[in-house]
Amino acid sequence: MNSTIDLINKRVSLRKYSEREVAPEVLDVILNSAMRAPTAGNTMMYSMIVIRDEEKKKRLSQTCDNQPFIAKAPVVIVFVADSHKMNKYFKVSGVGEYCEKNNKNLNTPDLAQLFLAAGDAFIAAQNAVVAAESLGLGTCYIGDIVENYDTHRKLLNLPNWATPVAMLCLGYYPEDYPRTPKTRFDKKYVVFEEEYKELTEEEIFEMYNENDRNVPIPNVYNAENFGQLLYGRKFGSDFMKEMNNGLIKAVESWMKKQDKF
Amino acid sequence: MNSTIDLINKRVSLRKYSEREVAPEVLDVILNSAMRAPTAGNTMMYSMIVIRDEEKKKRLSQTCDNQPFIAKAPVVIVFVADSHKMNKYFKVSGVGEYCEKNNKNLNTPDLAQLFLAAGDAFIAAQNAVVAAESLGLGTCYIGDIVENYDTHRKLLNLPNWATPVAMLCLGYYPEDYPRTPKTRFDKKYVVFEEEYKELTEEEIFEMYNENDRNVPIPNVYNAENFGQLLYGRKFGSDFMKEMNNGLIKAVESWMKKQDKF
Repeated sequence: MNSTIDLINKRVSLRKYSEREVAPEVLDVILNSAMRAPTAGNTMMYSMIVIRDEEKKKRLSQTCDNQPFIAKAPVVIVFVADSHKMNKYFKVSGVGEYCEKNNKNLNTPDLAQLFLAAGDAFIAAQNAVVAAESLGLGTCYIGDIVENYDTHRKLLNLPNWATPVAMLCLGYYPEDYPRTPKTRFDKKYVVFEEEYKELTEEEIFEMYNENDRNVPIPNVYNAENFGQLLYGRKFGSDFMKEMNNGLIKAVESWMKKQDKF
Repeated sequence: MNSTIDLINKRVSLRKYSEREVAPEVLDVILNSAMRAPTAGNTMMYSMIVIRDEEKKKRLSQTCDNQPFIAKAPVVIVFVADSHKMNKYFKVSGVGEYCEKNNKNLNTPDLAQLFLAAGDAFIAAQNAVVAAESLGLGTCYIGDIVENYDTHRKLLNLPNWATPVAMLCLGYYPEDYPRTPKTRFDKKYVVFEEEYKELTEEEIFEMYNENDRNVPIPNVYNAENFGQLLYGRKFGSDFMKEMNNGLIKAVESWMKKQDKF
């Protein structure tokens, strides 16, 4: 088709990296590509924190659900949903006085800002992923950065209204790395025409059928099928509860009404 | 650099489309590219609703903050954060009985699932954007799809735990379309090393300086600078409140604990 479609199709989540260093110029191209991503009203409500420090990467590998490979990635980028900067700009622009003078309500950050900022951050992150692939580098998303809310705020020196939503590990593919892109669900279960289509129980089973065929019985989760395994291993797990806790704290902090910026 | 980086750099939000039709095969490549995007634990917690129906596009152009160009896009794709399918799978897989038998809590959807699903949806959307660009098509994100919560649920036939988070308008660039990518903030305000950097008030002013130079005085918002204009036009506006209302309803529906799937 073309080289962009090709690299999108060949991309895998990379958890093992070549020892080849990521040169600052290469990282710059990736970061600039992220910054060219679409952003709501060109407000760029995100920040990217580039981490190369070995100690910090090691710490993150522990706080992000104990995944040692994180520490071995040459570069880690944390994508922060960030309306701290914009609201500071509102403050220094005299928006408080503007509201009084024009009889407008003063709206400090809310769910809408968190949503736009998180969207901006995810969209920028995926541009970084695609740009990295085009340069021969692989990536892995770490959603666990939303866990351990207070620890990560301290570790990354995050102010109010600045919440990490994604983390990327980044490095070159090892030589002769076997790329085996994972099977996706059939398109008929993901793409609908004109409106949402409620799938029948039979269709839902069929959708997951391929996964279900690979469940070893017995297993440590006492699961009898893939649905129970997925729940026991992930969606009913402690780290998912921890993720939920972190998000509750984040949402509360963005929704807390302030009387000034 | 390479063709992928090049198209990322040249991309603009396209609000005017060529009359050239988007062939089903072309749309398929874009949708497949979206489906190749990274997804949390390969769970693909999203759905894509493809809309070509003229009446429905017209309706969306009204419900999404009255933007007539939406109706003129050949294709509109709504990206839905969706854990409805997965939780139905949990139900048919007997996860309720599994929890009882193994003395585990039954966790129905929560903020963690909404977060992962929304992240999956945004990341897939951006893959669609990049794939479209590589094929000569332009896109525009419409965040307003989170407004008018109840109207959009009805219009798109959305079940519980299926929330639209992004909408893309899609079509070919008109011939000789002048592409003028918007200026982004300087990298030093967006990319930080090792930890978040609190910008001083002077830096914040400098960051927005270029925007501030283009504010016509007087203006309909009574704004005296760009900060006040941005607030008056957008972040203090009615549509932002409506966006916030929609998101509050969405978050409440995902956080509402159920005693079964």
